Amino acid sequence: MVEYRQTEGLDRVFSALSDPTRRAILQALSRSPSTITEIAKPFPVSLNAISKHVMVLERAGLVHREIKGREHYCRIDPDPLAEATMWLEHYRQFWEHRLDALQVYVATKFKASKKGTAHGKLH
Amino acid sequence: MVEYRQTEGLDRVFSALSDPTRRAILQALSRSPSTITEIAKPFPVSLNAISKHVMVLERAGLVHREIKGREHYCRIDPDPLAEATMWLEHYRQFWEHRLDALQVYVATKFKASKKGTAHGKLH
Repeated sequence: MVEYRQTEGLDRVFSALSDPTRRAILQALSRSPSTITEIAKPFPVSLNAISKHVMVLERAGLVHREIKGREHYCRIDPDPLAEATMWLEHYRQFWEHRLDALQVYVATKFKASKKGTAHGKLH
Repeated sequence: MVEYRQTEGLDRVFSALSDPTRRAILQALSRSPSTITEIAKPFPVSLNAISKHVMVLERAGLVHREIKGREHYCRIDPDPLAEATMWLEHYRQFWEHRLDALQVYVATKFKASKKGTAHGKLH
């Protein structure tokens, strides 16, 4: 039976990253920590919509929000991103090695078949 | 105004990865290409549910399905994974550099304040 370990965190991170507005918010926050009002400025959507997107990022642990008076200050927390990158990187390397091995196998087969043909011609 | 470039591909990849069953299917396929029936075996869900998950992975370009007679053979395509890893890695490095810079800044401030205290003690 398949085991699901440490999946909820990754579920939330990948789900949060699946939206272009949320990825753009993270990009903006990577330049500097900002208030919700500052984050919302360049987006063609309402302040409320941006606040909801930030909430999704917060639940995924990607953004940390601090409330000072009436302002909500947001900054990035890179740790969950590191976890997601590690997941992807691990499997990517694994698959690439498999593809490399396949290429070597195909190349060897190809050389062997060429040799076979050459051999056939000589005799 | 915020620009959304090449976002649909990443939307689909991150969305596909946000489900633990789909990530487990990718893990299984990373060991060897398989038929839908073989993939479904260790999962506590129906063949139909697995087929639907594979369809989501296919739409994201993560899995390639080949139909031979009655069997559907699936294998991984690592290219969209590479794109997602690159997106994450780029921002992760950026954020980590920012955190490193912040640490250096805090350490310098701390040293300076300690020196100030020591200086105060001497005079």
